[in-house]
Amino acid sequence: MPDLLNGRLFTPQDVAVLKEIILHRRDVRGARFVDRLPTQQEIDQILTAALHAPSVGFSQPWEFVLVTDRNIRQKVKDSFDTTNAAAQAAFKERQQDYARLKLEGILEAPLNIAVFYRPPGGAVLGQTSMMDTGVYSVVCAVQNMWLMARALNIGMGWVSILDAEKVSRILNAPAGHQLVAYLCLGYTDGFYTRPELEILEWEKRRDREGAIHHERYGDQTKSI
Amino acid sequence: MPDLLNGRLFTPQDVAVLKEIILHRRDVRGARFVDRLPTQQEIDQILTAALHAPSVGFSQPWEFVLVTDRNIRQKVKDSFDTTNAAAQAAFKERQQDYARLKLEGILEAPLNIAVFYRPPGGAVLGQTSMMDTGVYSVVCAVQNMWLMARALNIGMGWVSILDAEKVSRILNAPAGHQLVAYLCLGYTDGFYTRPELEILEWEKRRDREGAIHHERYGDQTKSI
Repeated sequence: MPDLLNGRLFTPQDVAVLKEIILHRRDVRGARFVDRLPTQQEIDQILTAALHAPSVGFSQPWEFVLVTDRNIRQKVKDSFDTTNAAAQAAFKERQQDYARLKLEGILEAPLNIAVFYRPPGGAVLGQTSMMDTGVYSVVCAVQNMWLMARALNIGMGWVSILDAEKVSRILNAPAGHQLVAYLCLGYTDGFYTRPELEILEWEKRRDREGAIHHERYGDQTKSI
Repeated sequence: MPDLLNGRLFTPQDVAVLKEIILHRRDVRGARFVDRLPTQQEIDQILTAALHAPSVGFSQPWEFVLVTDRNIRQKVKDSFDTTNAAAQAAFKERQQDYARLKLEGILEAPLNIAVFYRPPGGAVLGQTSMMDTGVYSVVCAVQNMWLMARALNIGMGWVSILDAEKVSRILNAPAGHQLVAYLCLGYTDGFYTRPELEILEWEKRRDREGAIHHERYGDQTKSI
């Protein structure tokens, strides 16, 4: 088995590149997309990143539906509109602010990719007690796509204000397949310097230390 | 708002670096860890990657518990052992193969990080119809950590054969916080050339085209 180890070491320069990509990644919405389809090679690079995500028990439980057809995208957009109108009520005194936000780019982005979880046929190693790890694997693939898209200077947005059942029917998904993410991809005229919702003062960045605990919740000792 | 756009363009060389990191990332288990704690700077870089993951509505619903204490890790390991023994039965005729696999590095890795989802106090933008997007944000953070760890030549493994409730109690997690991932991190003596479960012939890599659909499931036309 040790002959199956590789000694590939990444450098501090490689670390810096990854850090920059992570820090410059943005959720891109309609106002920023340019209506020009990424090249086949770029799309392939994004899918290769997805297909090399980690997956529980190497189950690779992901399915990607690449949508460019405008009629199909219009149907998804209609579902968004209905769902989004209903969502506003949850924001009480911020409803008017909410209504002004542009939260998707389904029609502006020339490529949409719906990402599904395909349930396994039998037991999956590692998925016996935390069953959601199958879906989590699909999310890891999405995050790989997001980073690769950003490295290619392609914008990507994740639309989650959708009726998953309705979108599954539009895309003719087999029974049991679960819509995990609906993505909009395309070139952009730029990426915001900070997350759009931070710029718009919808939400603040959390204090770093507030999210980090040592040894267990509530312990005051900081050993690392 | 356009003044908030930045023109940072990544190069084909940057794309190549990201691709290499993605392709060389592995799930690292006990046999490969070296018992030497990553530096504070390295740990900070991994956490910075996590904290800049995308999150639904910029909610940043993640919590990280850094565990080095051996007594705490031993308690988690005990939970793993119990859960793993019960899991074997699911693999029927492969039970003996399963029993031989080393599936975690809780004690071998000097640093464990438990990653929790913290439920929101109120409505979260984008999380009104697909509620799981909060947990998905936490998974995106984990994937950022995995890639940054690999770029730093640090191994990371995700242990999912755990009783999430039990581990939450061990770590004194507040009610409602949900364990999403339990990670083992440390230096390694190398990374496998391919996923370990592929090398061991536990599972095969899926055919690329089988996971990719065009326009909708079942359509035969390939427009892109």
